[in-house]
Amino acid sequence: MRAADRDAALQPLLDRYGRRIEAELRRALEGRDLVHYSLMRYHLGWEDRDGRPQDARHGNLLRPLLCVASCEAVGGDVEAAVPLAAAVELLHNFSLIHDDIEDSSPQRHGRDAVWRVWGVAQAVNAGDGMFALAHVALDRLSEVGVDSQPVLAATRLLDRASLRLCEGQYLDLAFEQRLDVSCADYLTMVHGKTAALMAAAAGSGALVGQAPPAAVNAFEQFGEKLGFAFQVRDDVLGIWGESRETGKLTGEDIRARKKSFPVVYAMESATERDREELRALYGKDRLSEDDVAAASALLERAGARARSQETASRYAAEALQRLEGIDLVPERRRDLELLADYFVNRET
Amino acid sequence: MRAADRDAALQPLLDRYGRRIEAELRRALEGRDLVHYSLMRYHLGWEDRDGRPQDARHGNLLRPLLCVASCEAVGGDVEAAVPLAAAVELLHNFSLIHDDIEDSSPQRHGRDAVWRVWGVAQAVNAGDGMFALAHVALDRLSEVGVDSQPVLAATRLLDRASLRLCEGQYLDLAFEQRLDVSCADYLTMVHGKTAALMAAAAGSGALVGQAPPAAVNAFEQFGEKLGFAFQVRDDVLGIWGESRETGKLTGEDIRARKKSFPVVYAMESATERDREELRALYGKDRLSEDDVAAASALLERAGARARSQETASRYAAEALQRLEGIDLVPERRRDLELLADYFVNRET
Repeated sequence: MRAADRDAALQPLLDRYGRRIEAELRRALEGRDLVHYSLMRYHLGWEDRDGRPQDARHGNLLRPLLCVASCEAVGGDVEAAVPLAAAVELLHNFSLIHDDIEDSSPQRHGRDAVWRVWGVAQAVNAGDGMFALAHVALDRLSEVGVDSQPVLAATRLLDRASLRLCEGQYLDLAFEQRLDVSCADYLTMVHGKTAALMAAAAGSGALVGQAPPAAVNAFEQFGEKLGFAFQVRDDVLGIWGESRETGKLTGEDIRARKKSFPVVYAMESATERDREELRALYGKDRLSEDDVAAASALLERAGARARSQETASRYAAEALQRLEGIDLVPERRRDLELLADYFVNRET
Repeated sequence: MRAADRDAALQPLLDRYGRRIEAELRRALEGRDLVHYSLMRYHLGWEDRDGRPQDARHGNLLRPLLCVASCEAVGGDVEAAVPLAAAVELLHNFSLIHDDIEDSSPQRHGRDAVWRVWGVAQAVNAGDGMFALAHVALDRLSEVGVDSQPVLAATRLLDRASLRLCEGQYLDLAFEQRLDVSCADYLTMVHGKTAALMAAAAGSGALVGQAPPAAVNAFEQFGEKLGFAFQVRDDVLGIWGESRETGKLTGEDIRARKKSFPVVYAMESATERDREELRALYGKDRLSEDDVAAASALLERAGARARSQETASRYAAEALQRLEGIDLVPERRRDLELLADYFVNRET
């Protein structure tokens, strides 16, 4: 399957929900004229750095799609999930604005990161504003008729996920200083950094879809497992992805000496000689392009690429298993399977 | 009245509520072992940089005191307001952690700022974590028996205030690049940066105290006016405060070329010659100690100090006027008057 075909695989979901999610996101920022909000619109790809309308590529709305698809899969009304989906996307994007500062990443989706355009101070504050805006966006849940009790329960799911997100980010940054990151350490980090928000997206979607508590819990686990699948696939793309597709350079995660899944796997499972070489490469202050190529070849030789891809697939399969025995709308179950497949096979 | 007497003026409120608020704050961080949370405990003055228990000076809990005092003043149960008070204090402190990064302030209360100890990346993330924790702390409202509806309404008040806080911070940072900040610009900035959270603290306290909507609204206005009073007094202390009391250097705000109230007042009202001199001083890249002294003398001569103090007093009086006609517990009304007085006359 070519990359274009794979993106096309997401199209039915985007056709069904994309416009509503996008409209809700735009509504959250509507009428907010302070330049502060232009930083957010720039980050979301809606404006250029001078505030002129733009339609730049940004994320592929995976988390909000997961949220609304989970709601409809349990027979809920998609309108109840859309404000939640927008809040989830805003939370994700607040974390991206801050991640770029914390990782000193100059680019995102082929454009300058917010901090590169407006400086660190305003970028930190724009991220904070988007975090606050995510909460304000939840007001709309009551407006579309969701009762106080489920609104509060959904809010709590997102709040706890936000805290986990920061814990995961703490670990990710702390791992930069360490060479001895184990697979277990890595998974703890990913649990916070990626899986928690996916879990909350799916779980809260099911919750406002009026699923019973056991089903909400199953959806949380579904989202969490998908989060792991997503991250491991992301790690594969971070090393072997085509820059044309990902908007990143091939080998980018090696260049940044990230302890991503293929690397922690190889650190534990490669031959002693390869492990030593990898440690030596990762111990350098700066990697040359030859070093990046050598590390990439070493990881391939250690089977890290194949093992990573298998791991992503296993998580996606486990995710779907969590929904067994849950009463789902049959056509909508297909959407969830499609999402799970996309998470594992995407090229971007 | 000496400074010590003025701090003593706050003592009845601290005696009544301080321990409960502190306990609730500690509960929010209890059992959170990741070093991520040690950054927060350090910022709050509970731990030194190596994680050893410490009892360093931190804020004086004005916002949480405002919250619980407002709740009791309308006849509410203080236990319902304590989780809210803790959330307000966490929100305030998240913003301080980020402010120090954004302003490149190396010190806070005589200790290194979080970013100076752990670096910008982890400090940004610690602030984010504290923002998330403030929301998680609101879980306790339901636990102590507050109904979903008021919990949600109080949450919304805090969320909107958080957004205003970021808007105010945007303006504050943007003003650094400008010399033409008017009093009106300044007040718009303070409305977000300081008054919004004070308004939410008082309003949400009254709300969980089961005050009727008109009273909640009056308390929001009370808190907002107090916020203006607080900030203008803060600006006076930022120029003429004794460093022994404030933990800042005398003239600090001039050294940072802040467009605080005395400065924007003088820029509008001083003699043409003084305004020119002030513009020249504020246009410099770096101020010498002589420059700082000259600016301070100029502001004094222009009447900016006296006018600022009058303005703070006027806001505090307006704050109390907003509560006229509202049914209050008589002894507790005294607490609110005491708070208002403290806001205007504090030395620290």
